[in-house]
Amino acid sequence: MLLILEKNISLKAVNELIGRLQWMGFQVVKGHHDNNRESLALVNSLHKQLNPAAFKDLPGVIDVLPLDKPYKLAGTDFKSKPSIIPCQGLSIGGPGIVIMAGSCSVESEEQIMETAKLVAACGATILRGGAYKPRTSPYDFQGLGEIGLHYLSQAAKQYHLLSVSEVMDTTEIDLVANYIDILQVGARNMQNYSLLKNLGKINKPILLKRGLSATYKEFLLAAEYILSAGNPNVILCERGIRTFETYTRNTLDIAAIPILKELSHLPVIADPSHGVGLRNMVAPMSRAAIAAGADGLLIETHPDPDKALSDAQQTINPTMLAEIINSLEPIAISLDRSIIRSQ
Amino acid sequence: MLLILEKNISLKAVNELIGRLQWMGFQVVKGHHDNNRESLALVNSLHKQLNPAAFKDLPGVIDVLPLDKPYKLAGTDFKSKPSIIPCQGLSIGGPGIVIMAGSCSVESEEQIMETAKLVAACGATILRGGAYKPRTSPYDFQGLGEIGLHYLSQAAKQYHLLSVSEVMDTTEIDLVANYIDILQVGARNMQNYSLLKNLGKINKPILLKRGLSATYKEFLLAAEYILSAGNPNVILCERGIRTFETYTRNTLDIAAIPILKELSHLPVIADPSHGVGLRNMVAPMSRAAIAAGADGLLIETHPDPDKALSDAQQTINPTMLAEIINSLEPIAISLDRSIIRSQ
Amino acid sequence: MLLILEKNISLKAVNELIGRLQWMGFQVVKGHHDNNRESLALVNSLHKQLNPAAFKDLPGVIDVLPLDKPYKLAGTDFKSKPSIIPCQGLSIGGPGIVIMAGSCSVESEEQIMETAKLVAACGATILRGGAYKPRTSPYDFQGLGEIGLHYLSQAAKQYHLLSVSEVMDTTEIDLVANYIDILQVGARNMQNYSLLKNLGKINKPILLKRGLSATYKEFLLAAEYILSAGNPNVILCERGIRTFETYTRNTLDIAAIPILKELSHLPVIADPSHGVGLRNMVAPMSRAAIAAGADGLLIETHPDPDKALSDAQQTINPTMLAEIINSLEPIAISLDRSIIRSQ
Amino acid sequence: MLLILEKNISLKAVNELIGRLQWMGFQVVKGHHDNNRESLALVNSLHKQLNPAAFKDLPGVIDVLPLDKPYKLAGTDFKSKPSIIPCQGLSIGGPGIVIMAGSCSVESEEQIMETAKLVAACGATILRGGAYKPRTSPYDFQGLGEIGLHYLSQAAKQYHLLSVSEVMDTTEIDLVANYIDILQVGARNMQNYSLLKNLGKINKPILLKRGLSATYKEFLLAAEYILSAGNPNVILCERGIRTFETYTRNTLDIAAIPILKELSHLPVIADPSHGVGLRNMVAPMSRAAIAAGADGLLIETHPDPDKALSDAQQTINPTMLAEIINSLEPIAISLDRSIIRSQ
Repeated sequence: MLLILEKNISLKAVNELIGRLQWMGFQVVKGHHDNNRESLALVNSLHKQLNPAAFKDLPGVIDVLPLDKPYKLAGTDFKSKPSIIPCQGLSIGGPGIVIMAGSCSVESEEQIMETAKLVAACGATILRGGAYKPRTSPYDFQGLGEIGLHYLSQAAKQYHLLSVSEVMDTTEIDLVANYIDILQVGARNMQNYSLLKNLGKINKPILLKRGLSATYKEFLLAAEYILSAGNPNVILCERGIRTFETYTRNTLDIAAIPILKELSHLPVIADPSHGVGLRNMVAPMSRAAIAAGADGLLIETHPDPDKALSDAQQTINPTMLAEIINSLEPIAISLDRSIIRSQ
Repeated sequence: MLLILEKNISLKAVNELIGRLQWMGFQVVKGHHDNNRESLALVNSLHKQLNPAAFKDLPGVIDVLPLDKPYKLAGTDFKSKPSIIPCQGLSIGGPGIVIMAGSCSVESEEQIMETAKLVAACGATILRGGAYKPRTSPYDFQGLGEIGLHYLSQAAKQYHLLSVSEVMDTTEIDLVANYIDILQVGARNMQNYSLLKNLGKINKPILLKRGLSATYKEFLLAAEYILSAGNPNVILCERGIRTFETYTRNTLDIAAIPILKELSHLPVIADPSHGVGLRNMVAPMSRAAIAAGADGLLIETHPDPDKALSDAQQTINPTMLAEIINSLEPIAISLDRSIIRSQ
Repeated sequence: MLLILEKNISLKAVNELIGRLQWMGFQVVKGHHDNNRESLALVNSLHKQLNPAAFKDLPGVIDVLPLDKPYKLAGTDFKSKPSIIPCQGLSIGGPGIVIMAGSCSVESEEQIMETAKLVAACGATILRGGAYKPRTSPYDFQGLGEIGLHYLSQAAKQYHLLSVSEVMDTTEIDLVANYIDILQVGARNMQNYSLLKNLGKINKPILLKRGLSATYKEFLLAAEYILSAGNPNVILCERGIRTFETYTRNTLDIAAIPILKELSHLPVIADPSHGVGLRNMVAPMSRAAIAAGADGLLIETHPDPDKALSDAQQTINPTMLAEIINSLEPIAISLDRSIIRSQ
Repeated sequence: MLLILEKNISLKAVNELIGRLQWMGFQVVKGHHDNNRESLALVNSLHKQLNPAAFKDLPGVIDVLPLDKPYKLAGTDFKSKPSIIPCQGLSIGGPGIVIMAGSCSVESEEQIMETAKLVAACGATILRGGAYKPRTSPYDFQGLGEIGLHYLSQAAKQYHLLSVSEVMDTTEIDLVANYIDILQVGARNMQNYSLLKNLGKINKPILLKRGLSATYKEFLLAAEYILSAGNPNVILCERGIRTFETYTRNTLDIAAIPILKELSHLPVIADPSHGVGLRNMVAPMSRAAIAAGADGLLIETHPDPDKALSDAQQTINPTMLAEIINSLEPIAISLDRSIIRSQ
């Protein structure tokens, strides 16, 4: 249930109302239903039996709307306008389109510094790199750990980029958040609910990747775990689903982009590198994702892809990245958008 | 094995060579390896044991190349340049992009005539409509049959459009070919090999839809059945695959477009209507398909979609079609292509 | 809608009633609702709007029941007891369990004669062998054709076995039916509706294989095409579905067996050879299928599996077949069933 | 690489050898290659370049074998005989077959006590119940937490059962291990590598469920994370994979049972409740799993299934459980096995 508040309600009145609702036993989440109206969402599961009329008389409430979708806070009933996630001066989800680029793993200080320099020159604004790597085999390279976070952070700062990196466990959240601007939840952890709940308690943006066999509904409910725990800054990432086709690593579900943007106010980006797993397909699939309405891209880029420690087959070089970003511009413009370029 | 022929070889010499190879027991398919060089492909399965050197000395042969892929004639080893399928003055597969539009079923003479008028006005060049419908239930509307073909054919002619319609059985090929310009093989019949072999014996273009769970290799081998039986005019159509996601009717595999165009010289079009099954998604997925390199689109359009006898949920109206086609133009231009418009 | 008839109604009265219903425009299918009561099903799609009360007064009708499932004739509303398909003295679908065995392809007269001898000695009662083979590539062995049917038929007769073989096209139905006892529709043709409709016009049993990505509902509706065209003798065959797992050729959906038997009165057999694609798995999966309630098995068996012209990897030898059949006996007995043995 | 040790080697000599290998930089895991021979596995990823001959001369080593599979410790190269997991006097993986039964969630002290009493009376030996529940929605019942573990533990002890319950996060391992005999990793956490690594540091048996879209290889590599971290007591659980079929909750991949037992020495159990999601299918699928070679079953059972707080649709009552267990006995006996009954 969503309580729409009076237009010029005072902060004090809002807080009193929240207190009263909490005292009644509700979990209350503050939001903006649309550009002009503040709202309070009651999201605990009991409210199905509630009588909306009983809430209309509360002081400061001018309307009561249903929140019928299972993803109450991620859905457009809670917020009809697209969310714009603020991140150190960069806006994710607005008319601008963000490019996140970098290597699968942080391999060394020099490697990530060189990568940062090159992707910044291409126009990317966010540097990606894994320090904690969820590898299928325990015997594969597991990432550099904290020192990798440090290198990534330094490289990003040096070239005026933001940083994004994966967090794999609740016990590592504080550590990763200490170094990195955007915390990524990998596809394999999309339903690691303990991790999601704890990421809901910090306020850095969370890049949530779709699970390999997650439906749209499950994906939005995973986001809901973060939102309902208090962190409104969630970015959804379509990164390919598992199908019967073996020529590609995954099947990048481009339709997920416009559908998630129709069901939810959260920004949606695409990862064409993992989504197909083939270097030559990064360019056409990047164009397809932007043409379908994506708010950004996450592209594995390495100064020397064939020497990358992981995911070499799907990693492109900076020359290809520059060409791709240039080819996106006219598509973005045709949709009244533009690619945000690093300065 | 592919025999590359001398540059100015006479027709007589080619025919003598073909005769000799056939006499030796080979199945021989004539082609153009690239723009300048004629070639003869030996496609029967025995040739793995053949010694290429033994064929280099044949009169008129200047080179012998391998045809290692299982799809010998559909693959780029046989023909390195994209095929352009000629169809009544229209070229499918060149720099121009074709729009095929129309209703799922031909419902009546008036309905298809009205549809033809409206889609022609939007810029479509090919009229689609089903007269023989492969319906999941025997109790659903099975199509108008021959009279439907007649209506479709008349409507197309009236508005200077070409026509495309499905053929479901070998016994109906001649009948459908008598009325229709492009014969469609539906997804459910992609591995109906008797049908494919018989379609290889006519020379009208064949629009071959990908099966619901067909790999790229199986799809290209289905095309190979048609090509090896003698008909080089095959158009591939990505129309969505079956996955675990139930929000959409199918998962439109956009990556199939650039991958098939890399593996094969055949044109590739996309069907965003069946591919997603949701009216609102036709526009973004059409844009994504063109951005990924598609040579055309097949879009279910009806003068009054909610009254369509089949597939109403995924069918758009002519206003939406016109908007979509207009929105494709800048994307096509950014790829040095353009949308072919009906006159 | 299902009209239940009076207990001792005369044939003449039934025929008059059918005539009257057909004159009214209905498609009428005669059946036995349960062991004692004859019934007439009205299966054309219009009957949703019909008023059951209006039919209760027809002469000979004592009750009117709904046929709400989309698979009206395949469902248990039409027939509550399991169907027993009679086939040359053998019953498929009763308490006995049938074993169909033989090679993927009929390879030669000697090979199929030897196969027949060996599988009969193991206890199999039906000989399988392909003469028309649906191969993924046009360059693979396509089967011996009519002479293969002749060899198969001769071998079966020699060893007092019945025969089963695939029919791929409407134009071949008469030919195959001329030689073979049970006509098989392959997985790739499960939705070849022209073929299904024409198989409904003969009265030999049809072994219908589930399509690679067919839901239970689609599978039963494919059977409905045959049933509604007049042939009640359909045997369903679960043969594995296509999933993301690549270690196996397919994923044999054992749950399909009890579910289809709950939804439908038709017999259900399993094909563990195609279902998994691995020789060592035929034994455990045969046991699992019987334990789950299958009415029979279809097992690829060859005198010398490693020399089989097709599907060698999943084909077992007669020694393994004999061991498997013996190991099924106690499982069958625990379910109050038994394995039918050839004499 | 696997070093096979001399037959009567002293513990001191083994420890010296381990020390030496560790000093060289290897990760060493002790095991029994077969019943008679002790072995040391070197499992870090570098050993591909190692020369086996160089290790044959080490004191106490009589043979050096390859460990070529990616799942070095889970595979049969490391241990050719089936592992028997000891658990409080019960053996999992031997000739006996274990039945784990109980409700999806621990709902109350009375409910789980009643459940324990009833499933013990049916013959089950292990009591299941969730206290920490991984629910798709944050608004669904999340389990009772620690008090639920306490209730479960008490109920199990009261009726001489062992207990199994899910652990969702590294921070909860000690707590769950304090109460429960067997720790379960849910399907959604199968690739939560931090959790797996930490479960490798305790010595209680781990019940590892297959992920919804995990291949056999990925499943065994998830087990490898636990094994390589030091805990050899892993039980694999097939619980259904996600496919296109929507009639069932999942597709129970029965073939996984014999295949995993061929690839690995670890015990394999099946969960027919989640695997199909339909109450009526628990009996036939339990029989199928045992017939295919499963070492046990995990069956959702509730005194009053329709009132279960979660998974009601797939939960059976104790009467059905007793019938199922009885029907398994003859199948087990036919495979020279038997059902372990609680006293």
